[in-house]
Amino acid sequence: MSTFLSKRYMSLTPYTPGEQPQDQQYVKLNTNESPFPPSPLSQRLARQAAGDLQLYSDPECRKLIPVAAEALGVKEDQILFSNGSDEILNFAFMAFCDEDTPAVFPDISYGFYTVFADINRVPQKKIPLTEDFRIDPKDYYGAGGTVVIANPNAPTGIALSLEEIESILKANPGNVVIIDEAYVDFGCESAVGLIDKYKNLLVVQTCSKSRSLAGGRLGFAMGDKDLIRDLNTIKYSTNPYNVNSMTMAAGIGAFLDREYFDMCRERIMETRDYARKALEDLGFECLDSRSNFLFARHPGIDGEFLYMRCKEKGVLIRHFTLPRIKDFNRITIGTKEQMDILLKTVKEIMEEER
Amino acid sequence: MSTFLSKRYMSLTPYTPGEQPQDQQYVKLNTNESPFPPSPLSQRLARQAAGDLQLYSDPECRKLIPVAAEALGVKEDQILFSNGSDEILNFAFMAFCDEDTPAVFPDISYGFYTVFADINRVPQKKIPLTEDFRIDPKDYYGAGGTVVIANPNAPTGIALSLEEIESILKANPGNVVIIDEAYVDFGCESAVGLIDKYKNLLVVQTCSKSRSLAGGRLGFAMGDKDLIRDLNTIKYSTNPYNVNSMTMAAGIGAFLDREYFDMCRERIMETRDYARKALEDLGFECLDSRSNFLFARHPGIDGEFLYMRCKEKGVLIRHFTLPRIKDFNRITIGTKEQMDILLKTVKEIMEEER
Repeated sequence: MSTFLSKRYMSLTPYTPGEQPQDQQYVKLNTNESPFPPSPLSQRLARQAAGDLQLYSDPECRKLIPVAAEALGVKEDQILFSNGSDEILNFAFMAFCDEDTPAVFPDISYGFYTVFADINRVPQKKIPLTEDFRIDPKDYYGAGGTVVIANPNAPTGIALSLEEIESILKANPGNVVIIDEAYVDFGCESAVGLIDKYKNLLVVQTCSKSRSLAGGRLGFAMGDKDLIRDLNTIKYSTNPYNVNSMTMAAGIGAFLDREYFDMCRERIMETRDYARKALEDLGFECLDSRSNFLFARHPGIDGEFLYMRCKEKGVLIRHFTLPRIKDFNRITIGTKEQMDILLKTVKEIMEEER
Repeated sequence: MSTFLSKRYMSLTPYTPGEQPQDQQYVKLNTNESPFPPSPLSQRLARQAAGDLQLYSDPECRKLIPVAAEALGVKEDQILFSNGSDEILNFAFMAFCDEDTPAVFPDISYGFYTVFADINRVPQKKIPLTEDFRIDPKDYYGAGGTVVIANPNAPTGIALSLEEIESILKANPGNVVIIDEAYVDFGCESAVGLIDKYKNLLVVQTCSKSRSLAGGRLGFAMGDKDLIRDLNTIKYSTNPYNVNSMTMAAGIGAFLDREYFDMCRERIMETRDYARKALEDLGFECLDSRSNFLFARHPGIDGEFLYMRCKEKGVLIRHFTLPRIKDFNRITIGTKEQMDILLKTVKEIMEEER
């Protein structure tokens, strides 16, 4: 820290992204990336755009928005794109929280929510998950602040039903309810269909997981046009050209190529079921994941030990030190071949420890 | 505005980017873009990166930083990249200004500074340019806040000398001095060489102009490692993966291809001198531009009228309504052919008005 840093941020603890070691080739199952490359159409359009970078990208995303709105079933003024969904989540914390409107979210969820609250100097109210790591919708009725719920939740992978989401929306008419659907395409119901009905609903999604564009950085929010206008006010006051031309083109390809999108997510769901069964056969408990990862613990193996030993053997998974979930590891669903390497590695570790 | 927007931002006036009409093909001289495509190496590396977008981009930019640091003559811990230089300027306003540390900048400069101050709820102190549109360094001695100076200044194009910059640094030891060098590569001296000497100096540059990557979005800041660490704290608390993989690759190409970079900026400076002389022959007054644009007025033609008539005739230039500069237009330096079209158009308009 320099002597010049504002006192506003002196005690800020930034977010820690999943590790990306460069020292060897890992089977990388730690940051919930897709094992599949972007759609061939995405790649082609992005490559074409690389030749015209001397011109600014379109801050209004006028070519991307109609294609995305059509694919997602929303109106063009109900959607906004950003440089990854983290940026849009930060915009939403800025726009809809303040000293009088706390951010209300589960104690175990995406670790960035607490950082977004801190950097915006917004009070936060963390609501514990139930004993079995579920979100109880009733805990969010009359929340007295902006509700932020990841659905499915991370790192548990457990989903709320659409009825449960709707009950939270109804019970918070005076506050925005942000549903962060980063992992929604892997077997969970989206709340997008409710945006015409609830003016307080903001749905945030990303192209990083189910559309294989993590490295392109393309997130989006959907909601009533007035909420979208508020987020645009923040965008045009911080970084109007926030989506670059190549990523914009890649996004157009991703939304047009529905077939590839469906193929990727179906393959990932099949592989998830396969890996879950195999882990359960080894004695692991896996939470009921509707995402592209499993959250698993074993009664006989320490969570951090398993993570460390897997890493030594060339397989990266993600361990969190939060006391309530320290027995678990979060394992991204890769290809079947990658999961077989993980399973073989876990078996070896269990045999070594016997 | 929705009923949910925080009172913090209710009176915010966002930045207005230069217009990008889609209704016809314009000779586009309104947003200071380069008339040259990105370096062939930039394009090739960006295209290669498009195939691997399923993996997150490297938040630490470990491949880009050594190449850029070498090209720019700084140490690796003295540089930070961002999604365009607007993002880094916002980070700097966040980190180094607050209620007790106002932002101090010229009354006529990059229009975004006042928006960055507003969105961060930071007081601002605007110092008038001199009668002849120059920055007087003495006006910034003991500024009592974070100094923000574009050098060369926009939209005037006039530059301060390195000695003048240094005098401001010396006279503000307790505050950060941000030198925004978006246009520095077109004939102005960079302050980068001073960062080892002044811990309060932050130099901000962009790849949008001289490196033809406006649509790729790649900005960077250089300064003492403690200042860079502060900016990283902000980055990792808002959007750690802020630079996408394709742009990171394009940036590597741009910094490696020194020859192309020098060729582009030399061509632009030559064309600027050519266009300036031709405009002066038509009776225009042009300020002494060290950038890739001219700021020009004519004693016989209203500034806004000229802008409007040029637009009707298919040539886009930029007019600002601020009273002190409303007689001027800002004209981006394009190719010689584009400038000839501009000159022909201006001549036509002058003849029609006679």
